[in-house]
Amino acid sequence: MLALPATSGTSTRQPNRGSPVSHSNESLRIGVIGLGAMGRGSALAMHERGLDVVGCDIVEQARHAFEAEGGRSASLPSELGGCQVVVVLVVNAQQVETVLYGDQGVAKHLAPGSLIIQCATVAPAFARELGERLDAMGLSMLDAPVSGGVAKARSGDLSVMASGDKNAFDKAEPVLGAMAATVYRLGDRPGVGSSMKLVNQLLAGVHIATAAEAMALGIRLGLDPETVYEVITHSAGNSWMFENRVPHILKGDYTPLSAVDIFVKDLNLVHETGRDLAMPTPLSSSALQQFTAAKGAGFGRDDDSAVIKVYQRLGGIELPAAANDPEEV
Amino acid sequence: MLALPATSGTSTRQPNRGSPVSHSNESLRIGVIGLGAMGRGSALAMHERGLDVVGCDIVEQARHAFEAEGGRSASLPSELGGCQVVVVLVVNAQQVETVLYGDQGVAKHLAPGSLIIQCATVAPAFARELGERLDAMGLSMLDAPVSGGVAKARSGDLSVMASGDKNAFDKAEPVLGAMAATVYRLGDRPGVGSSMKLVNQLLAGVHIATAAEAMALGIRLGLDPETVYEVITHSAGNSWMFENRVPHILKGDYTPLSAVDIFVKDLNLVHETGRDLAMPTPLSSSALQQFTAAKGAGFGRDDDSAVIKVYQRLGGIELPAAANDPEEV
Repeated sequence: MLALPATSGTSTRQPNRGSPVSHSNESLRIGVIGLGAMGRGSALAMHERGLDVVGCDIVEQARHAFEAEGGRSASLPSELGGCQVVVVLVVNAQQVETVLYGDQGVAKHLAPGSLIIQCATVAPAFARELGERLDAMGLSMLDAPVSGGVAKARSGDLSVMASGDKNAFDKAEPVLGAMAATVYRLGDRPGVGSSMKLVNQLLAGVHIATAAEAMALGIRLGLDPETVYEVITHSAGNSWMFENRVPHILKGDYTPLSAVDIFVKDLNLVHETGRDLAMPTPLSSSALQQFTAAKGAGFGRDDDSAVIKVYQRLGGIELPAAANDPEEV
Repeated sequence: MLALPATSGTSTRQPNRGSPVSHSNESLRIGVIGLGAMGRGSALAMHERGLDVVGCDIVEQARHAFEAEGGRSASLPSELGGCQVVVVLVVNAQQVETVLYGDQGVAKHLAPGSLIIQCATVAPAFARELGERLDAMGLSMLDAPVSGGVAKARSGDLSVMASGDKNAFDKAEPVLGAMAATVYRLGDRPGVGSSMKLVNQLLAGVHIATAAEAMALGIRLGLDPETVYEVITHSAGNSWMFENRVPHILKGDYTPLSAVDIFVKDLNLVHETGRDLAMPTPLSSSALQQFTAAKGAGFGRDDDSAVIKVYQRLGGIELPAAANDPEEV
């Protein structure tokens, strides 16, 4: 069921790069709901590859940012009835529910056979049930959580962990080709993509909190933080997240690339899913408590590496200061 | 204070490879205490590079294994009085204490100015105090925990996280050059090396337990374990330990490369050190509980990836079976 990155990425993407729009894409109108940093990036990546895209967000500022780069926008999901493919790039299941089934939701306006590409990180059970509900309306769904961050969204280089039937994958192909460098085909029905994303978020969330715990202990032991980073990134204690997030701590720069709030949400999904399946997840729960404490202390909208401030407050360590701390200038 | 891997590795090691033994090394006798898999490997690596090495272990079988590969051995640390450098490659602080200060300990037999290279993973406070005690006897100490595993010990390619004064580093140079590919010079007194090793073990231990938790949840969600491995090792959820240990789970092969017992010990050191410093380490404590449960369930001497069997027992998942399960043959 697995398409390897190189193969899949190349084959899905190639037709959309620098070549004229093909006949089948000419008649395809795509709606992108959610023009936050991720959604705007993906919508612009599609637009630049010649796809007919309408971006949708209730926030005026988000629409203007999209329009400023050449995009066409709508303010309500219900205005996207003419689209054959709707990409949902919102934050959580509640927002997915609202944009599809709320008063101004798009679902009831779509023609039979239209495709929803669901990209939010949601509980696998929610994704599975959503697929059934859309199917009952004659709509198709690809369960397709994304990862890679804002820069890769903008360049069309996301990773997509996708599941759905062949028809859904076929219909999604030009869209995924414009959004993603790698498409994992994980199964033939919604829920599998969200399961894989949840496993990834479990690891990512615990690794960030553990990186913070390790740096905090190292600093408390009197180690030089830069040296800890240098040694650990060459040792068996390394993780993708340690390597990526600890530099934010070293620079004292907590500008959010991905926020504490995201892992409060995603590790709650891990917790709820484990509870529903009667599978204990003690490490995830412990990390969830640390992110929850970080949010409680007022750092919810800071970069997720700010979870180290929980250790700072409790353990009394001194963290590296920002080189250009605005308060000092 | 930090020597980068390439530079340091090359410069410390080069003189010992394929060239005649230099005059200064001719008169240097080295004792290696602890001929377990790591100690035997390092002692043989030194022997093959022309150093005058005596290996020491109270276990007859360990001595025979060393002698079978050409090594010379002694059964008691007190027999190593003629050595100018003694490398201590035992399991924990209690063993370090015994081989140095027990009835048959080596410390009182060494000539003033001799060097102890302490390689066990011990509490930083223990390493610091040990340095002071040895110093009071006129002996020198390098705090030098190692990492890299059995194969790298045998090939002389370990990483060493070392601290001590210049005299200790100078005297240790030919020995470290034979044992290690990378020597991190972390500080000028014992304790800093052990601090760095503890930070690494914190990360390594939590990452192994988290890899087990993630695989367990993935399997419980119905994901294919091989696919989870493939996707995660290309995603932000990856860690050195996930990449290295999950294949053991996929093969159902829990032959110990590094045992559950090691992380029960090392995460206890993290816990005790955090307690002494009043620095909470909740993620490490949670991982410690999982390794403790694995030991309690009888898997202490299995590979550390066997911590997933705790999740198996509680969550009722089916793990991949060994391809050549002896019970099935």
